[in-house]
Amino acid sequence: MTQTVTVLGATGSIGRSTADLLLQHRDRFRTGAVVGGRDAVALAKVARELNASFAALADPAGGPALAEALAGSGIPNGAGEGAVMEAVAREADIVVAAVSGAAGLKPTHAALRLGRTVALANKESLVCAGDAFMRDAKRYGATIWPMDSEHDALAQALHGRPLDDVRTLMITASGGPFRTWTKERIAAASPTEAAAHPTWSMGMKINIDSASLMNKGLELIEAHHLFGIEPARLDVVVHPQSVIHGLVYWIDGAVTAELALPDMRVPISHCLGLGERLTIERGRPLDLVKLGSITFEAADEDRFPCLRIARAAMAEGGGAPTVMNAANEVAVAAFIAGRIGFYGIAELVERACDHFAPIYPSAPADVEEALAIDAHVRAWSTEALPEMRAAE
Amino acid sequence: MTQTVTVLGATGSIGRSTADLLLQHRDRFRTGAVVGGRDAVALAKVARELNASFAALADPAGGPALAEALAGSGIPNGAGEGAVMEAVAREADIVVAAVSGAAGLKPTHAALRLGRTVALANKESLVCAGDAFMRDAKRYGATIWPMDSEHDALAQALHGRPLDDVRTLMITASGGPFRTWTKERIAAASPTEAAAHPTWSMGMKINIDSASLMNKGLELIEAHHLFGIEPARLDVVVHPQSVIHGLVYWIDGAVTAELALPDMRVPISHCLGLGERLTIERGRPLDLVKLGSITFEAADEDRFPCLRIARAAMAEGGGAPTVMNAANEVAVAAFIAGRIGFYGIAELVERACDHFAPIYPSAPADVEEALAIDAHVRAWSTEALPEMRAAE
Repeated sequence: MTQTVTVLGATGSIGRSTADLLLQHRDRFRTGAVVGGRDAVALAKVARELNASFAALADPAGGPALAEALAGSGIPNGAGEGAVMEAVAREADIVVAAVSGAAGLKPTHAALRLGRTVALANKESLVCAGDAFMRDAKRYGATIWPMDSEHDALAQALHGRPLDDVRTLMITASGGPFRTWTKERIAAASPTEAAAHPTWSMGMKINIDSASLMNKGLELIEAHHLFGIEPARLDVVVHPQSVIHGLVYWIDGAVTAELALPDMRVPISHCLGLGERLTIERGRPLDLVKLGSITFEAADEDRFPCLRIARAAMAEGGGAPTVMNAANEVAVAAFIAGRIGFYGIAELVERACDHFAPIYPSAPADVEEALAIDAHVRAWSTEALPEMRAAE
Repeated sequence: MTQTVTVLGATGSIGRSTADLLLQHRDRFRTGAVVGGRDAVALAKVARELNASFAALADPAGGPALAEALAGSGIPNGAGEGAVMEAVAREADIVVAAVSGAAGLKPTHAALRLGRTVALANKESLVCAGDAFMRDAKRYGATIWPMDSEHDALAQALHGRPLDDVRTLMITASGGPFRTWTKERIAAASPTEAAAHPTWSMGMKINIDSASLMNKGLELIEAHHLFGIEPARLDVVVHPQSVIHGLVYWIDGAVTAELALPDMRVPISHCLGLGERLTIERGRPLDLVKLGSITFEAADEDRFPCLRIARAAMAEGGGAPTVMNAANEVAVAAFIAGRIGFYGIAELVERACDHFAPIYPSAPADVEEALAIDAHVRAWSTEALPEMRAAE
């Protein structure tokens, strides 16, 4: 029984790992639509490799390039929002939602509304509009499988048992490249230094978020929505080797956990298998003896204020996480561009949260409202930038 | 809905931890029969505390002392094998089988034959007669919940998923008190040194088995029967902090594991709850940050030949594990008595395995046959002792 898999964000890091698995398990999976952002050539390449049924590029200007790159393949294609929505609407058993950023909200939500099984890697869907997403998933009978390694780990360690029996859900953080740095040194860090992630190979934005621990804050907010658990029962521990990804602390003192070497194909394959295990070619098994030792530290919210800000936004709820995420996107881009220093990220985000707290006290009721808040906060944050201290 | 729990081995270490939990959860559990070995006063004490429905002492000579110690309590009691069997036959929802040694086989098997849910802490049931026990559990509709921390950890990490998806089941070993010792120093070790277990508080016999790693060998054999998994997919890793108890390596590279501070009440409560989680008063939560670091080493079968011998017996199957266990009991007693040195244990066990391999090629068909092999090997091993080198 083959299953059709549509991949939103097919040219990104998660999309490429997904493609690798789909190719390894051709007997089990057929590719539905593939969706990319701006890179027509890369999208055409993956569409051909996977023999996709449809290819859509989000950037409307890329239409001709995509059509040219797919010439002779027989793969129908298009560009712009309409084409993306057509891709989502095509029949699929599983939709991998791996478009990054706020751009992922609409197509991911559309998949939910179709009652699809959604393998969710787009953090922003839950961070910016978690209440609406979880409500609509239930309403339209969609199933969400978390694809982040941390949330997949929690799902594996929870294995469907009731939350009543859970004391704490704990996710791990590598600690990022600044884990051992002083506050002074972090304050003067360059974008290149911040992007040097010690264990995972990911995109630039997420690497900066890992350096600031904002990434863990976003993941806590995701976990809050995914598992329907209150903020007080969610926690983070720094674990530099990144082999334990998530731990469930039970009321009896037992702790269940999921471990794996950092390889996104592990959580992706668990989602694609819908709980069944798929073999992974060229996978590296975890060798604890070779590892020798694994370590744990408390997360330091003084050196990494973004984690504190994210926890506060999660506890506050309402529009706070949506605001925080938008401000963070602007701040990270400004840091990468050299316009603000590393701690300028936390500073801008905190200012945005303070400013918008009375303006957006309630959680966005739908994706449109979340996107409107997002746009408003981005505009405000961009305007606020010149007031900020320049990068040191 | 209260459940009736009968405790075989009520005065031992597991029995006392079980009693602690039963007292903490009086709303959930009622005590059925309690069974002890020789200590009438200790048995009467636990019977009174738990308000047991019956108390039986295995030692027939202890009958009068037990009756006296229970005078006025209204708790019916008896001594000798008949009384033990009467205890097992009394109505119970869960039978905790925590009699240690070969003495545990008959009452544990009797509980299985009654189709009871058996929380199994008696290693010898599966080591000496694993085929017969698992066959009869199935035949009489009994359910076995493993109570060892390692096997409970594997059960929690497997959470009922199919073995087809499993690459390896791994149990951890603390490495015992001789983990960092040279072979020469181990050879000259005293019983007191061998009994100084670094992380668990247990009885003398099991402490010596932990020092020789025979304990891990016995646990591998138990796991082989409990989970119905072949020897090649079972492994051991040395993990001195003893906070991870068991790990399941899946075919996709993911590893699920159970962790807890060393406290037998954790696996016991998991068994008594039949998968539901019970709170544990005065439990210590696992604090990874406080722990700081956890380490892993390969098990060294050169310095710890008992592990090699046990693996070989498991791989050979048939009567080999039964023979090995009996010889080990004699050898450990002789080591404690100062009659042989530490490596004399492995030497005697290996000689017994070699000697009996052609005599008992087949697995014992029932408990009686297992006990007959056990008695034969014990007699032979005791006779072989004077030929061994005395303790250094």
